[in-house]
Amino acid sequence: MAEYNTNLRLKLPITCIVMEVIVIILFAVFVRYDTDTDARKWHKEKSHDNKSNYENDFYFRYPSFQDVHVMIFIGFGFLMTFLQRYGFSSVGFNFLIAAFSLQWATLMQGFFHGMHNGKIEIGVESMINADFCTGAVLISFGAVLGKTSPVQLLIMAVIEVTLFAINEFLVLSVLNAKDAGGSMTIHIFGAYFGLGVTRVLYRPNLDKSQHKNCSVYHSDLFAMIGTIYLWMFWPSFNSAITAEGDDQHRTAMNTYYSLAACTLATFAISAVVNHEGKLDMVHIQNAALAGGVAMGTAGEMMLTPVGSMVVGFLAGIISTLGFKYLTPILEEKFHVQDTCGVHNLHGMPGVLGATVGTITASLASAEVYGEGMKDVFPDIYEGKTTPFKQAMWQGLSMGVTMGIASIGGILTGLLLKVPIYATPPDTMCFEDNIYWEVYARGRSVYDLMSRELQLLSSV
Amino acid sequence: MAEYNTNLRLKLPITCIVMEVIVIILFAVFVRYDTDTDARKWHKEKSHDNKSNYENDFYFRYPSFQDVHVMIFIGFGFLMTFLQRYGFSSVGFNFLIAAFSLQWATLMQGFFHGMHNGKIEIGVESMINADFCTGAVLISFGAVLGKTSPVQLLIMAVIEVTLFAINEFLVLSVLNAKDAGGSMTIHIFGAYFGLGVTRVLYRPNLDKSQHKNCSVYHSDLFAMIGTIYLWMFWPSFNSAITAEGDDQHRTAMNTYYSLAACTLATFAISAVVNHEGKLDMVHIQNAALAGGVAMGTAGEMMLTPVGSMVVGFLAGIISTLGFKYLTPILEEKFHVQDTCGVHNLHGMPGVLGATVGTITASLASAEVYGEGMKDVFPDIYEGKTTPFKQAMWQGLSMGVTMGIASIGGILTGLLLKVPIYATPPDTMCFEDNIYWEVYARGRSVYDLMSRELQLLSSV
Amino acid sequence: MAEYNTNLRLKLPITCIVMEVIVIILFAVFVRYDTDTDARKWHKEKSHDNKSNYENDFYFRYPSFQDVHVMIFIGFGFLMTFLQRYGFSSVGFNFLIAAFSLQWATLMQGFFHGMHNGKIEIGVESMINADFCTGAVLISFGAVLGKTSPVQLLIMAVIEVTLFAINEFLVLSVLNAKDAGGSMTIHIFGAYFGLGVTRVLYRPNLDKSQHKNCSVYHSDLFAMIGTIYLWMFWPSFNSAITAEGDDQHRTAMNTYYSLAACTLATFAISAVVNHEGKLDMVHIQNAALAGGVAMGTAGEMMLTPVGSMVVGFLAGIISTLGFKYLTPILEEKFHVQDTCGVHNLHGMPGVLGATVGTITASLASAEVYGEGMKDVFPDIYEGKTTPFKQAMWQGLSMGVTMGIASIGGILTGLLLKVPIYATPPDTMCFEDNIYWEVYARGRSVYDLMSRELQLLSSV
Repeated sequence: MAEYNTNLRLKLPITCIVMEVIVIILFAVFVRYDTDTDARKWHKEKSHDNKSNYENDFYFRYPSFQDVHVMIFIGFGFLMTFLQRYGFSSVGFNFLIAAFSLQWATLMQGFFHGMHNGKIEIGVESMINADFCTGAVLISFGAVLGKTSPVQLLIMAVIEVTLFAINEFLVLSVLNAKDAGGSMTIHIFGAYFGLGVTRVLYRPNLDKSQHKNCSVYHSDLFAMIGTIYLWMFWPSFNSAITAEGDDQHRTAMNTYYSLAACTLATFAISAVVNHEGKLDMVHIQNAALAGGVAMGTAGEMMLTPVGSMVVGFLAGIISTLGFKYLTPILEEKFHVQDTCGVHNLHGMPGVLGATVGTITASLASAEVYGEGMKDVFPDIYEGKTTPFKQAMWQGLSMGVTMGIASIGGILTGLLLKVPIYATPPDTMCFEDNIYWEVYARGRSVYDLMSRELQLLSSV
Repeated sequence: MAEYNTNLRLKLPITCIVMEVIVIILFAVFVRYDTDTDARKWHKEKSHDNKSNYENDFYFRYPSFQDVHVMIFIGFGFLMTFLQRYGFSSVGFNFLIAAFSLQWATLMQGFFHGMHNGKIEIGVESMINADFCTGAVLISFGAVLGKTSPVQLLIMAVIEVTLFAINEFLVLSVLNAKDAGGSMTIHIFGAYFGLGVTRVLYRPNLDKSQHKNCSVYHSDLFAMIGTIYLWMFWPSFNSAITAEGDDQHRTAMNTYYSLAACTLATFAISAVVNHEGKLDMVHIQNAALAGGVAMGTAGEMMLTPVGSMVVGFLAGIISTLGFKYLTPILEEKFHVQDTCGVHNLHGMPGVLGATVGTITASLASAEVYGEGMKDVFPDIYEGKTTPFKQAMWQGLSMGVTMGIASIGGILTGLLLKVPIYATPPDTMCFEDNIYWEVYARGRSVYDLMSRELQLLSSV
Repeated sequence: MAEYNTNLRLKLPITCIVMEVIVIILFAVFVRYDTDTDARKWHKEKSHDNKSNYENDFYFRYPSFQDVHVMIFIGFGFLMTFLQRYGFSSVGFNFLIAAFSLQWATLMQGFFHGMHNGKIEIGVESMINADFCTGAVLISFGAVLGKTSPVQLLIMAVIEVTLFAINEFLVLSVLNAKDAGGSMTIHIFGAYFGLGVTRVLYRPNLDKSQHKNCSVYHSDLFAMIGTIYLWMFWPSFNSAITAEGDDQHRTAMNTYYSLAACTLATFAISAVVNHEGKLDMVHIQNAALAGGVAMGTAGEMMLTPVGSMVVGFLAGIISTLGFKYLTPILEEKFHVQDTCGVHNLHGMPGVLGATVGTITASLASAEVYGEGMKDVFPDIYEGKTTPFKQAMWQGLSMGVTMGIASIGGILTGLLLKVPIYATPPDTMCFEDNIYWEVYARGRSVYDLMSRELQLLSSV
């Protein structure tokens, strides 16, 4: 057991401080205010272009940013508190790696597609993009939840954010695909990256912690806080960086109806696949969100409200069936231990979303979009491409994303296998106590319950 | 007990899927993007009227919409988690029926007062209206909480949304009453509809489940999440669909002060009616919100900040006294089993709000409103009516709403009595276990506590 | 024990009703709608100045207001629920005193620096300011948490709000210091006022309740809801009342990066100061927020993103070290019993923030700020002062604030020592049961646990 030294006393502080110092140095060298956040530049532009303060990008995007921010920190954080004995780590490590990732993402996204005269200029839009990239890391966190130390998670974040920025550059700037809500760049990327990592970190004896890998009554209620916030604010997520005006408006509305239809599908399938006709909190907490994932690409397009509902309905069905039937197969046959089922919530619905985006792009017509084509498909508007070619790039982007994510995840997993990161032993997965000071009295209440549980379950 | 087959395996999926398919077909036939969400139409109007993107209705109303959305899904959902053993159902069924109702409301409100050339055109304002209508259904849910199956709730939603849209049309378009925050159309309607349903579904032997019809320590804290969100965002609720500019601003501010005064009244009365001078979480969780309900009609009027405080203060007193003294009488004498006390939170404060709206309308003068009269009372501004007549229509609207809601609720209750909807037996009300997979370990913790409780309470 | 009559039956209602009636009378006499909330005045100004509705201050500030509102009621309220047995009081008394304070603050801030023709004119900006002032009261609440009755808290609020308004007037209007996010006026003021009160209310025998002055597993998760909301919305807090345009935008972004760096510092220091290398929830819940406090003064200045990160990083280090090493010293040597450690979260980071503001102001140059100097440092822009003098006023403001707060807190503590306010005895601190109706069954679950705990801890 010598290899399982889970003491964080030096490893975590060194990792955090080294990484933060590197970030600070790079920010000092490269990062500057953009026109909308710089006192001199904004006032100059304002008087030059006869602009008003309400044309500052802050007023267009900050409310959306805050909704996205809530999804990242409350949504993802609490969604993962469903584990009975891993609540501190779920919400705490989510907090830590998100706080790091958004800084690192500002740099990586800046380097790969945001340099102006050798500097990275930042404002609310780059903040949203940084939060988006963070979302992908948190999706991957869901796949390895309970089986990794915070040091491993931070190292995973460094690599994943970097690859995310590269993939995003390829998809959006080289292939010129559209993906405002990130069905591909966020959800497919985060899911397959995380699945790659967890496959390499496969633990054949994870059943030693299996009694902790489940929920208790109140932990499921905490998780519902995460679920409901993700569900409510997904319209803001998908519309946060689309073009201003009708585009943001339409994207939010499409997502709203997609999620509503998805929820009905989830309840329906959850009841039908249970022998006693009972609903399963795992499905409600997760699959009801698939309608948001599936609108990440086509949400800004003229998909129509009814089209959005059909997509959401399908997403809910696929996702719930995945939780019920696919997750056990992935674990038993393919040795992929996907704690939160991110393949069902982000992987498959992401593929559905990318596919819907491909089809919808192929149907784009001047008759439907009018002058709005300029915002949604600028290349088609300018005659640089055709709807059919745009659709091809959309489809290709999905493949590129899956490839980079899977390979990146596998390589990252290999790096994380090196036994120096305070990783938990098989018997102590899904357990806060190894990384957190769980107070004496709090612990004894829990121990009391645990003992009784063992007695009860041994009957 | 044959009639109490609570297995949802076929009943819930069939209900959900049939209803969702009907919604999808109707959306395909009738629902279209409005000017602000349609790519072609928005760009055409923008260039025609020389508009800017920031004049898109999205930027005026989407932040308010999101606040309303949080109230519907987190606010109502968690407010009802106070029951010790019904948290999954409270937040889960709230989620299900809200997701359905907002779709159905889009259609019904469209049919009754939103058709343009045979089509229903939708955008952020219709989304807010759909959420509002959903709010009324959730109020009714509060009255029957713990005693109905999700199938019953979905059928109730179908009927209630339909009647809501008819009543809303009568009040706002036929009687030309003002009710932006829905003291009448949402609160009175939702409360009396729910009371009608629960009266018909009266269970003389509900005391068999009485030991579950109460809170535990942490369930009351979850409920406070709901309470506080409702309280904080009520200013957004009441102002969400008022006219732009001073109207939204004033409505939000009036509601803010009304709620603050209401909270002090609630704490005061809660302590004074308790023999030991202790505060009661039921009052704090509910009555402190009555100040928002009571501002639903007059909030947009020139009620003055102090007027708003007086109304909120009265609402808090009435509501707390209702919880303490009226709820037991309603149950014992009138056989109305109102689980959440919606009569105290929505019924009576709604009547107060409608009355205040009537009085404030009767006092409208050009001296006070100036050109703003056009927004608040367009009929008075245009000389089509007088303040006195406007007040008469306001008062009549309250009566119409109570009538339609009560009769509609009673008829709906009769329909829901048919024993085919997987309704729970008297012994299993307020119990998640019949509809939800409550995991083995989670269950045994609970059972452990329950056993001890029974021992303790049998001493 | 006669002096420890904790029955609230007359004391709390009388206090609430008298205070609310006084507020209502003062509102009736002094408070009026401002131009942006008054129907007549807004429409007059709109047509006179050819304004549009979207220039109403509501659209610039209401989303920020709502974020601040969430911080006050959810953030502070749930942050304090970490105590195992004081959750109702934490969130409930937070609710009560905040609802009162925002009304009283409207009046006091109006009297001291908001009178127009003998009237206090109010709108969304005054609502934000009232919430800000409420924040200071809630910080002080954190220092005395668990040891005071709601009557004491309300009286404390009356005095603290009044002194807050006076100090704010001195700092912002007499000394012309900048402090948009309130490092001085809110955080230093609230912390040192609370420390003054708790010093005077020192209980040498508080160890009699010590077994209740700690968390349990789920109470720490409830507290994380508060933490995360405070963390996410702090950018809105600091930017809520800065000038429109680049100022709001920049302030929000500076705070975002400061908090992210602060979080990494907190995790690093929390692990390194623990003998087993374990993280401590107390640090994560609190110190991770110090980066927001420390940006309260300089956030709107051209601090640069990297400057913000450095400040946040330092704040996280100082705050975590304070929780670990300073709090015990303060209690043992100086008899300051600071329940929530507000000295570590608000006191020291507030001093850091004020110092950073002083330094940043001294570096202000036309080259960096351009025409934006007018918004950030109007006196420097107009040539009325120099950066050096501005810095002097900033530093002096910090001293004035500490002085008024400390002395005010001590005098308030003396007043609160009079044994007529239903204050809890030493044996019943940190205990909901004396002020709240904790239901029989809820209580017995708790008692069951408590008994077992006592057994366990007596082994």
